[in-house]
Amino acid sequence: MISRLAVIGVGLIGGSLAMGLRRAAQVEEIVGCGRSTENLATAVKLGIIDRYTHDVAEAVDGADMVLVAVPLGAMPGVFAAMRDHLADNTVITDAGSSKAIVVAAAEQELGDAFARFVPGHPIAGTEQSGAEAAFATLYKDRRVILTPVPDTDEQAISRVQSMWEHCGAVVTSMDVEHHDEVLAATSHLPHMLAFGLVDALAGLEEHDEIFQYAAGGFRDFTRIASSNPVMWRDICLANKNALLKMMAVYSNEMQSLTKVIEDEDGDRLLEIFERAKQARDQYVDSVVKKDE
Amino acid sequence: MISRLAVIGVGLIGGSLAMGLRRAAQVEEIVGCGRSTENLATAVKLGIIDRYTHDVAEAVDGADMVLVAVPLGAMPGVFAAMRDHLADNTVITDAGSSKAIVVAAAEQELGDAFARFVPGHPIAGTEQSGAEAAFATLYKDRRVILTPVPDTDEQAISRVQSMWEHCGAVVTSMDVEHHDEVLAATSHLPHMLAFGLVDALAGLEEHDEIFQYAAGGFRDFTRIASSNPVMWRDICLANKNALLKMMAVYSNEMQSLTKVIEDEDGDRLLEIFERAKQARDQYVDSVVKKDE
Repeated sequence: MISRLAVIGVGLIGGSLAMGLRRAAQVEEIVGCGRSTENLATAVKLGIIDRYTHDVAEAVDGADMVLVAVPLGAMPGVFAAMRDHLADNTVITDAGSSKAIVVAAAEQELGDAFARFVPGHPIAGTEQSGAEAAFATLYKDRRVILTPVPDTDEQAISRVQSMWEHCGAVVTSMDVEHHDEVLAATSHLPHMLAFGLVDALAGLEEHDEIFQYAAGGFRDFTRIASSNPVMWRDICLANKNALLKMMAVYSNEMQSLTKVIEDEDGDRLLEIFERAKQARDQYVDSVVKKDE
Repeated sequence: MISRLAVIGVGLIGGSLAMGLRRAAQVEEIVGCGRSTENLATAVKLGIIDRYTHDVAEAVDGADMVLVAVPLGAMPGVFAAMRDHLADNTVITDAGSSKAIVVAAAEQELGDAFARFVPGHPIAGTEQSGAEAAFATLYKDRRVILTPVPDTDEQAISRVQSMWEHCGAVVTSMDVEHHDEVLAATSHLPHMLAFGLVDALAGLEEHDEIFQYAAGGFRDFTRIASSNPVMWRDICLANKNALLKMMAVYSNEMQSLTKVIEDEDGDRLLEIFERAKQARDQYVDSVVKKDE
């Protein structure tokens, strides 16, 4: 049970954790913190948080659990602002999509409290953002990856794990670098491809007409291009190396696909498409069959 | 009203047209034609078609409307097989995703009946295939593009237009080359990107683990990689030139995005992502708001 949860950044991610914990009756009081009064007032109105402040120090005061769910670029400032206001038993975690940079910022800014900082990443979300987009079941059957370091307090890890599990999530651990590579492949690269596709089409002369004839496949394919630009700028900068590595792998794949089309090599095309279909169908069967 | 509709290829596309016309009470009899007895028997059982044959000549015999909904590579053979069995008033149309190659094949194979051939392309579909995937409302509020040539009979055009409208579709016309460019951008390129992404990830050493951590965005983004490989091989070969042109545009976009990430140019990244998000949100608002 959490006595007082401080949610720094009451958007889709932070708001949904608050709602999930509330629904599970695992939290007594929830304090929200952010910059937009409108968003925070909405969060109070929707019952996501009990009260709010714009001041990080005030938000964490008396909290036994703190979730930092702001864009990666804002994390160092948030950590620095809370450092001198954390109780000795306060556990801090985050929801950043790239872990190496968060761990480095936390180590630099949190001082002694760094031992009670459990780096985390819920693999869940939609292209929506803000408190209004939050819902209690966002984390149901979703994975949450924790990336503790050797110094991370075992009890803090177990409290964070338990918190996510109460929201229905499946919690696993991996090391920081491995997390950043896996996420570059499964999330950061696809977002680059979708942003790039929409931007490329928007740059064509006949773009209005082109979008008019785009069908369902296009809508699904480009959904992630409606994601928060600030968040994704920060992810690109934070996970630059792993992302560039995956972009190079993809570029090679597309160069060889282009060559196969130029050569009109139907057998080879069929082989590539069949292999891709099989991998995707298998992924759906094993991972997401419940909601597709 | 259609007296006898012949559907050559009773899959998602052909089957859904049959179901839509039946529901609108715009067809008396529907004859299915294809290679798989299992699929055709399913189509009869589901009430999609009244009867079936494996022989194209027999299927079109006595039909006043023929829909060819087979992969592009199979179209020349289908046209050749029906040529001597069409009545003087039979209207023929197709559902191919690339039009120049279909028009060329029809002109070569259909003889005099070419004047009553109305090239068409319903912009609708899912990643599923086969008669079992068909449903009566697939074309509701979807666009169907007709690409008639100067010689195409006006009455034939109007009968095909009316047929699709009875299924709820919005029918427009454009010339063949323009169709193929627009579709290369909105459909063929995205399919290449999705097939390429899944194939690239499947080729990584840790692919099992990677797919395990892929979340909702990835599922949507790669849905079209579950599409029919034979159909997509044929589309690549059929629309090679327009597709390669779009793949080059995309490759340039991704090269410049890669450079911006390498340079850690946050302002420029934000600009690209904001422009893409705006274009995608605008597209959703104007085109697909009804079902998203």
